[in-house]
Amino acid sequence: MVGGGQLARMTHEAGIPLGIRFKLLSDTPQDSAAQVVSDVVIGDYRDLDTLRDFARGCDVITFDHEHVPTEHLRALEADGIPVRPGPDALVNAQDKGVMRAKLDELGVPCPRHRIVKDPADVAAFAAEGVAAGDTESDGFPVVLKTVRGGYDGKGVWVVRSPEQAAEPFRAGVPVLAEEMVGFVRELAANVVRSPHGQAVAYPVVESRQVDGVCDTVIAPAPGLSEDLAGRAQELALRVAKELGVVGHLAVELFETPDGRVLVNELAMRPHNSGHWSQDGAITSQFANHVRAVLDLPLGDPRPRAKWTVMANVLGGDYPDMYAAYLHCMARDPQLKIHMYGKDVKPGRKVGHVNTYGDDLDDVLERARHAAGYLRGTITE
Amino acid sequence: MVGGGQLARMTHEAGIPLGIRFKLLSDTPQDSAAQVVSDVVIGDYRDLDTLRDFARGCDVITFDHEHVPTEHLRALEADGIPVRPGPDALVNAQDKGVMRAKLDELGVPCPRHRIVKDPADVAAFAAEGVAAGDTESDGFPVVLKTVRGGYDGKGVWVVRSPEQAAEPFRAGVPVLAEEMVGFVRELAANVVRSPHGQAVAYPVVESRQVDGVCDTVIAPAPGLSEDLAGRAQELALRVAKELGVVGHLAVELFETPDGRVLVNELAMRPHNSGHWSQDGAITSQFANHVRAVLDLPLGDPRPRAKWTVMANVLGGDYPDMYAAYLHCMARDPQLKIHMYGKDVKPGRKVGHVNTYGDDLDDVLERARHAAGYLRGTITE
Repeated sequence: MVGGGQLARMTHEAGIPLGIRFKLLSDTPQDSAAQVVSDVVIGDYRDLDTLRDFARGCDVITFDHEHVPTEHLRALEADGIPVRPGPDALVNAQDKGVMRAKLDELGVPCPRHRIVKDPADVAAFAAEGVAAGDTESDGFPVVLKTVRGGYDGKGVWVVRSPEQAAEPFRAGVPVLAEEMVGFVRELAANVVRSPHGQAVAYPVVESRQVDGVCDTVIAPAPGLSEDLAGRAQELALRVAKELGVVGHLAVELFETPDGRVLVNELAMRPHNSGHWSQDGAITSQFANHVRAVLDLPLGDPRPRAKWTVMANVLGGDYPDMYAAYLHCMARDPQLKIHMYGKDVKPGRKVGHVNTYGDDLDDVLERARHAAGYLRGTITE
Repeated sequence: MVGGGQLARMTHEAGIPLGIRFKLLSDTPQDSAAQVVSDVVIGDYRDLDTLRDFARGCDVITFDHEHVPTEHLRALEADGIPVRPGPDALVNAQDKGVMRAKLDELGVPCPRHRIVKDPADVAAFAAEGVAAGDTESDGFPVVLKTVRGGYDGKGVWVVRSPEQAAEPFRAGVPVLAEEMVGFVRELAANVVRSPHGQAVAYPVVESRQVDGVCDTVIAPAPGLSEDLAGRAQELALRVAKELGVVGHLAVELFETPDGRVLVNELAMRPHNSGHWSQDGAITSQFANHVRAVLDLPLGDPRPRAKWTVMANVLGGDYPDMYAAYLHCMARDPQLKIHMYGKDVKPGRKVGHVNTYGDDLDDVLERARHAAGYLRGTITE
């Protein structure tokens, strides 16, 4: 696996029972996954020679993140190393411009969008969205995204005027403009697909963001109609198939007031919106990602509990979260803590907790309490 | 953790979510746990200097097996390293003579037993068990055990005459004689205890042996009365407390036809009879062992399914079990495979599978099928 973050850490954890040999390419020995894996190569994934050396002897390569350059992935494939997901699929998770063009081609519903070339073009894009006869609106706000490199709110701007639209263009990366969708809530449809074409769909979940960062995930999404849940799952399965995804695909969605879903983002790797599955599903996203990448039959994705809630643990003012374990574990003996071994910095994702049960209010309260207590924003 | 076997492997797996740094002392880099742990020291646990070097910088030491010499454990404690379980507790799992004497002192029911000094003494022990007036019986068969070093049927003999009783004495280790108990079945009462005295009891399980090796574990033990289950749990909790156990304690029991339980063996570490808890309990034995050793509050030991079955996977004639994954995983998408990364040798424990569900027959059949298919004794 290329990349030493928490996704690699938890993928290794899920791979241990399969008896496979897991090899990691990590930036530093302190990285989250490098702390727990035996076979670690320290190196820069942007360097092709490093990647090639690492890949030698691997049966298959997969990823903790989307940042490996596409041309490097093609070079590995040319060397005869299976790369899963492959470069033609992965580019859709690397480049939002490519992804939007591909989804348009497939007729998959997305927010209105196009590549814009400067602030004046942003104003033109905004105006294109004004309904005929509406003389009040200038079409703003508009969402601007650099097509590469953004995550967790980085590389994304909400602009209310052409004047505010200058910054995104400064990086020299193409900029995608999107309509600001007045969504009811955010959903995620997570699926896993294997090379021989088997695929499984997890229950559609609700994802709640705070300051652009995922805060809480509820599985399944409360009150979601069976019809819309089914359509979201079918959409994700279709995207996985048409894009040739292998492994876990997270399709982040907006649910609109008129009962549609629009694709927000794609991620081709285990994803924060699937962490609930570690304790809430028969087979976790990590276990199924490993099985897909190895072309093994996939595990059952169904839930084991009526409700499962995941709450992210962000770093707070206290560097030592371990002390907070005492209170959290004593208060809730069913709590599942998943920490990443990262240094605590304010606002940094350093872990998550899962809770499950029959009563959603209780399950939500327990997850939020634990995440808040670990962060230090709740002290009792 | 001292010892690189599968118990250490699975303890590491369970420790990853806690964000702790796990350090391993392993005989070789090929050992089961050494394949998956980052921080591995290769060395011989029988060498005190090796142990001391290993322990430096550890907050606490625990074990994958019972074989570390008691005097070495005392030396580590004298160095100021917490050893959990400590030498005074662990000696009861190391030396069956010490264990029987201690359980006698506590009034815990055991098979009739005493240390015997030669085959003639075995005959005397056998005769002591003959009921008054019974002129037919010579008291045989008798079970002989070397007090140290046995496991999985090794170091244990069932002898039917004084002539058969010579072999156990050849090792020069004290020999314990025990009555051959006519048990209904074997049970295990597993508990976990932490240094501050908190303890949790898992449901009592039934353990089925084949050729002296654990074959199948059913959780909870089918048809066990609430009364006997409660007494078995209380017995295990009492033993854990009185012996000062820290961590997981497996109390292997015989259920007698007249509705009593007798203690067969003790193990002070995660145990084969607790593997079901990885997929069948809210908190696994491995997670609770880690929590106990670190003196963290313990997790809920209750089952998540009505029935969970564990079946051991023994090595068969095919060295590559991986190929069998395809059929097993496709046949049962809910199957949980736990392999140890060991070379396959006929009869060697190389993994286990867990299944769970509402219908015991179905759950048993799925576990047995998978274990048999992986071994190669079932081919369809």
